[in-house]
Amino acid sequence: MKELEKLFNRIVQRVNINLRELHFDVSPYAETLFPSEQMSKFYAFYGITPDHPLDLHFEHSALAGSYFLGKCRVRNSLLYKSDIRGDELKRKDQNIRFDRFSLTMNRDELIDIEDSALVKTLVHNYSHDPETPEKFYIKDTLAMDYSNIHGSPCDGSFLGPFATVDLTTMRDCAIGTYSYIQAGEISHMDIAPGTIWVNSSGNFNFFYKYPSDALDEYVSLSPEKVPWGILIDFIEQRKVEFQRVFDYANIESIESVPKTSSLDRYAVVLPNMRIEGNVLVSQRAYLENSSLGKGSNAQENCFIINSSLAGYNVTAHGAKIVEADMGSGAFVGFNSFLFGKKHARLRVGKGCIIMPHTIIDIEEPLEVPAEHFVWGLIRNAAELAENSISLEKLGTLRGAFSQGRMHFEGDGLLLFKAFKDRISHILDVNGAFFDNGQKAGHAQKNQRLSLNTIQPFQFGDMEGMYPNIRIFP
Amino acid sequence: MKELEKLFNRIVQRVNINLRELHFDVSPYAETLFPSEQMSKFYAFYGITPDHPLDLHFEHSALAGSYFLGKCRVRNSLLYKSDIRGDELKRKDQNIRFDRFSLTMNRDELIDIEDSALVKTLVHNYSHDPETPEKFYIKDTLAMDYSNIHGSPCDGSFLGPFATVDLTTMRDCAIGTYSYIQAGEISHMDIAPGTIWVNSSGNFNFFYKYPSDALDEYVSLSPEKVPWGILIDFIEQRKVEFQRVFDYANIESIESVPKTSSLDRYAVVLPNMRIEGNVLVSQRAYLENSSLGKGSNAQENCFIINSSLAGYNVTAHGAKIVEADMGSGAFVGFNSFLFGKKHARLRVGKGCIIMPHTIIDIEEPLEVPAEHFVWGLIRNAAELAENSISLEKLGTLRGAFSQGRMHFEGDGLLLFKAFKDRISHILDVNGAFFDNGQKAGHAQKNQRLSLNTIQPFQFGDMEGMYPNIRIFP
Repeated sequence: MKELEKLFNRIVQRVNINLRELHFDVSPYAETLFPSEQMSKFYAFYGITPDHPLDLHFEHSALAGSYFLGKCRVRNSLLYKSDIRGDELKRKDQNIRFDRFSLTMNRDELIDIEDSALVKTLVHNYSHDPETPEKFYIKDTLAMDYSNIHGSPCDGSFLGPFATVDLTTMRDCAIGTYSYIQAGEISHMDIAPGTIWVNSSGNFNFFYKYPSDALDEYVSLSPEKVPWGILIDFIEQRKVEFQRVFDYANIESIESVPKTSSLDRYAVVLPNMRIEGNVLVSQRAYLENSSLGKGSNAQENCFIINSSLAGYNVTAHGAKIVEADMGSGAFVGFNSFLFGKKHARLRVGKGCIIMPHTIIDIEEPLEVPAEHFVWGLIRNAAELAENSISLEKLGTLRGAFSQGRMHFEGDGLLLFKAFKDRISHILDVNGAFFDNGQKAGHAQKNQRLSLNTIQPFQFGDMEGMYPNIRIFP
Repeated sequence: MKELEKLFNRIVQRVNINLRELHFDVSPYAETLFPSEQMSKFYAFYGITPDHPLDLHFEHSALAGSYFLGKCRVRNSLLYKSDIRGDELKRKDQNIRFDRFSLTMNRDELIDIEDSALVKTLVHNYSHDPETPEKFYIKDTLAMDYSNIHGSPCDGSFLGPFATVDLTTMRDCAIGTYSYIQAGEISHMDIAPGTIWVNSSGNFNFFYKYPSDALDEYVSLSPEKVPWGILIDFIEQRKVEFQRVFDYANIESIESVPKTSSLDRYAVVLPNMRIEGNVLVSQRAYLENSSLGKGSNAQENCFIINSSLAGYNVTAHGAKIVEADMGSGAFVGFNSFLFGKKHARLRVGKGCIIMPHTIIDIEEPLEVPAEHFVWGLIRNAAELAENSISLEKLGTLRGAFSQGRMHFEGDGLLLFKAFKDRISHILDVNGAFFDNGQKAGHAQKNQRLSLNTIQPFQFGDMEGMYPNIRIFP
């Protein structure tokens, strides 16, 4: 048996051992995960910048098409077209506060991936677990297509396609397809597909679950089949454009971009883009015939097509905006799918918060009023009314509150503030507020980023595996 | 001062300290060596194959455009477009014989480059020094454009442009422009430009020195100037073709090549090439409108243009064959320049040995008769008569013999045999005799070679330097 296959089988066994109490067997899903003939085809790459510590360590792993930035160690793992973006890891001597605790980092934080398989997964941010501040670990974990592991140490877990764990430590959990979990610390949970759960113990608890039949049209997962649905088709149809950017060692600059903005070399930029200042366009973003207003960002795996972003807009990892006009400061969370049509344009008012994993798929024009909080599945005005609330009203909620399939408990003002603070933080670290040499963020710093490649064995038993590689300054 | 400059200055000082007894100052030559803006432009690359041990270690070095194969360590060094080809290094448990001594290797041999600067230099073969069988070292050494360090451990030495040290351990020596030295062990020697010296202590001693004025037309070196002359111009005129092969991450296959032959991905192959079986075409070879007969090879930095090679021809590192017809088994040594013209074709008979560093530059057709031994500068039939001897006659020489500027002493048969044995060995290791799965050499094994890249820092004080990188299986 080839080394790649052995390694994969071993990872599947390890995840299954961890998930045994849930009686969850990842094998049938894992089967279709790695096109083994692709594993030797794609190079992996890493960023070098004067702004982030460099320490990469790859050991007995396959890394096809994956990207690394910052301090990362990958051992006995399979990463396929995954982005391991350690540009927000904590630094040595940095003082960290968690609630009433304060801690000084005695070394730079490291992303440590071991015995895991990640497919088209985004790993970003830093360990929000105060118990392991120096290590953002992902072990014995299998993450499927377009999942996000964001600031979330994971141990022995499974993430279905388009699943997101955000600022959450997770042990022995299975996160269903298109579920979004932000819940501090969870263990031994089997989360059903289409669950949107934002929980801050003692403060607030937000819960929504997609109707299964409706969600299935967008993304479905069955044993022994690759994931399918509208979301998958949407991405597949645009795959060929990514091919081009990865095929060339040196690609010509495509569009004029202001000096305060940065356009990643592995982003797809199709004609008629207007990009203003302080804009960050990340790896594998896809931009076409749109305008990105000042201080906007287009994060990894996002798509922005035939749309306008007024300014200071966050388009989070994996979010898709099509035929839409986004008001100033409007935020679109992870993996959301805003799917206007030529004949049915979507307008999102200023200051709106589109929750992660929201689907807006309309056949008639629709307008989300300014300063609204929006979630779940919205296909018309009635569903918008059911799945949104003004931020003003959200701020007044205390105790239990239900609306449609959404249930809320706690202090609405705290939820509102948590989102607003976070959006402002995201804009800040991305360099949206850069002014006169002050407040530089990723948008400015990434201009000093260069991308280097590493490649796998092409022959023999080790085909598709990478040599052991250690890179440091 | 930037790190690259500091490193370069330090190497120059180290070489000068070593060469102090010769009163040789490399600084004025070194000045023009490294176009510092190029050092960050070019990636370096390394070969991965199932046939050669992999262990690469790069530390505090700049490697722009260089190539590595086999076990290599590079520390505190500057390598510019150099080929460090460790595919003939000795292996663990291999039994080595030197004269009456026999030794078993207790580990794989390593090419170890330290505190050295190599420009467009070829490092190949293995340490022929029985005193350091496990380490082919190059330290405190500065080697200029198109020099060859072939099986020759070097310490504290300078090699001028197109200089070759072959199977020779060298300490504190300066080797002049276009000189070829094969002399076992030398130290504290200042070798004048255009010296061809093949010495086997107690067996034979061959010596030729180019007329200085004539050599200057082909390649000249002066303090504070880049080398110039016909040889340099010849290469510069063809530079643009190499640009193309290095610009693309994946280059399409250019010509049909038999399954038993291999064409390196970084060779230039222009139209109208015919390549037969068991042929090896190496890195940076340049082929145009020529035929390579069965079992021929075109080694690093060689050029074969408008020529035919009948079969089993060696075109050694840096040799150039233009408008020539090479008979079966004809050998062309390092850096030789066979420069026929359209109106003045060169024919070289079968079995001829063209010594390393031979220049044949004719304006009228010329034929080298079969089975002849040829050296030095030849521009017409009279100079051919002066600078050649039949192999039959060579075999009968005993004691002292002079012809033109060539002086010989010793046993001609031993010199003849040394060359014949070596040519047969070169053909063998290159896979010329591959038959039915037996006697595979580089030509066959290189089909299982893949090339990976590494890249330098692009910004800041470390610009042009490479991160520390360690790569092993």
